[in-house]
Amino acid sequence: MITTIYWDQDAVVILDQNELPAQIKYIRCEDYHALVRAIKTLQVRGAPLIGVAAAYGLALAVWTSREESAALEDYYLRVEQDFAASRPTAVNLFWAIRRMRSVFDQCKGQNRAAIARSLLNEADKILAEDLAINQRIGDIGARLFKEKVRVMTICNAGALATGGYGTALGVIRSIHKNGNLQQVWACETRPVLQGARLTVWELSQDQIPVTLITDNMAAYVMSRGEVDAVIVGADRIAVNGDTANKIGTYGLAVLAAYHKIPFYVAAPMSTVDFNMDAGQKIPIEERNHDEVRQIRGMYVTLPEVKVYNPAFDITPGELLTAVVTETGIIRPPFFRTDI
Amino acid sequence: MITTIYWDQDAVVILDQNELPAQIKYIRCEDYHALVRAIKTLQVRGAPLIGVAAAYGLALAVWTSREESAALEDYYLRVEQDFAASRPTAVNLFWAIRRMRSVFDQCKGQNRAAIARSLLNEADKILAEDLAINQRIGDIGARLFKEKVRVMTICNAGALATGGYGTALGVIRSIHKNGNLQQVWACETRPVLQGARLTVWELSQDQIPVTLITDNMAAYVMSRGEVDAVIVGADRIAVNGDTANKIGTYGLAVLAAYHKIPFYVAAPMSTVDFNMDAGQKIPIEERNHDEVRQIRGMYVTLPEVKVYNPAFDITPGELLTAVVTETGIIRPPFFRTDI
Repeated sequence: MITTIYWDQDAVVILDQNELPAQIKYIRCEDYHALVRAIKTLQVRGAPLIGVAAAYGLALAVWTSREESAALEDYYLRVEQDFAASRPTAVNLFWAIRRMRSVFDQCKGQNRAAIARSLLNEADKILAEDLAINQRIGDIGARLFKEKVRVMTICNAGALATGGYGTALGVIRSIHKNGNLQQVWACETRPVLQGARLTVWELSQDQIPVTLITDNMAAYVMSRGEVDAVIVGADRIAVNGDTANKIGTYGLAVLAAYHKIPFYVAAPMSTVDFNMDAGQKIPIEERNHDEVRQIRGMYVTLPEVKVYNPAFDITPGELLTAVVTETGIIRPPFFRTDI
Repeated sequence: MITTIYWDQDAVVILDQNELPAQIKYIRCEDYHALVRAIKTLQVRGAPLIGVAAAYGLALAVWTSREESAALEDYYLRVEQDFAASRPTAVNLFWAIRRMRSVFDQCKGQNRAAIARSLLNEADKILAEDLAINQRIGDIGARLFKEKVRVMTICNAGALATGGYGTALGVIRSIHKNGNLQQVWACETRPVLQGARLTVWELSQDQIPVTLITDNMAAYVMSRGEVDAVIVGADRIAVNGDTANKIGTYGLAVLAAYHKIPFYVAAPMSTVDFNMDAGQKIPIEERNHDEVRQIRGMYVTLPEVKVYNPAFDITPGELLTAVVTETGIIRPPFFRTDI
């Protein structure tokens, strides 16, 4: 399985996902700003991996800093703010920042080098835990399927989006391991084509059978009876099950409901935002309009055309069959404990 | 309004729609094979325009032939077959071939030059009628809207797809003329991007406000309450209202129904296939897989990935609010006269 991020002597090395599948290129980030930029430009993407990257970025910032004591505290706060501002929707980012903060606070009084080592140690733990969590999500999710299934997915909620194995693609990997996967329908996922570029590549690497379609073909494929389940990842899940995920997920959920196809979200518990009762308040990132006007840097329309480019949408919990987490299959009322 | 096709001294000249919007390039077809190729490669596209192009192609074939009498009859049959085999889904093609055949048959006994003149005359009539029909469809359709509306469309059912004015975009043009158009949401329409390339360009030429989205954004835009109606064209309509149109249309119809947004098909009566009770038997063209793997000739995924590339889908009549034709607004049970 491909490595998406690792620590290497005073630097964080990341796989540049914008270059896939044409080339496997790693970027060495020697200061944390490079990592913030990598998150903003989608070189590193996927909610769980953004969390991991921010954790390493916070460690890197302290590792490469020259500040000590109070100055280090101010500096650390600015670094946190820079990562927090990199992308608004995925909650794993804020979860990772909080988790690193608690380590930073526990290190009070230690010198910078010791704090940096503790932070790096925590980032390593977050990465290792994420991999283990995903394998568990995969195995739990795969138990839902007792016979050969054809699974549709959107975007890339795979090894490339996480510390490894993947969430939605983790479940798909485990179904495949159990001998129950007939094939995957990968929606190409405009505008940034994570399905065509990343999911197709990642599944092909593991010899998992995949057929690529454009996003507007999903309904027709469903109507032909060729989809047994839809499994997607998540960037943030509200307590009532409302789920922010890659733009197009909501449409797939409506279409799945219409065709009576079960619709599953696979995500670690760190994706659940327990401060959010419902999805309406989840901030939806709107990205650069040239992502829509261009494909891989080439204009496919008038350069001046008005564009709307939300990167995510909200799928109401009522359209979800269940959420697959490392703690089990969560069904409605999902994460509500007050009823 | 741009000219998409015309006769010019022993040749049919067509606008090469694959080059839009980057350049306005006309191609001179001096033999009918060039026109068959132009239809297959989407240089000429849109159900009504394919019909017009086939009519001119049949005239051109006889105009440039050296056959007479029985040999001419055999030749004409082969030409008909070549056009009939160019694209399977749009029924206007077969309608135009039939209409030209009846002229050819009426000319029995005349010499080749006289037949060619009659055929050319008929093609000119089909083109002029199509324009008039579209203007009528537009005006009838626009009467459905009494206040400012935001209309979503897919593909290009515009002047570029017809003899002029357009079907779905004809209705939109007339709504605009009536002062009732707030804006158009144009779905980019992968794989060939007729929305991004053609609809955006065509509407911008006429200063009609348009916002471009990728196909997977449609559901989210609807959920935000920003769509008052969906209006699309058609390639073939069965008697019960089942409609073959650009891939993605069916998904939009399901989404529109879910969001309680009216969904209209705008098409000339020549798009209705009175031999087809229901849509299941409409042949759906599957096109070259590289249309999905590539965008404008550039690979965006693994070159060897398995692909499904249906060019059309079938929207059940039950999801249609009405069909707008030159004869009026047709509501369920649509074209059925036996009940």
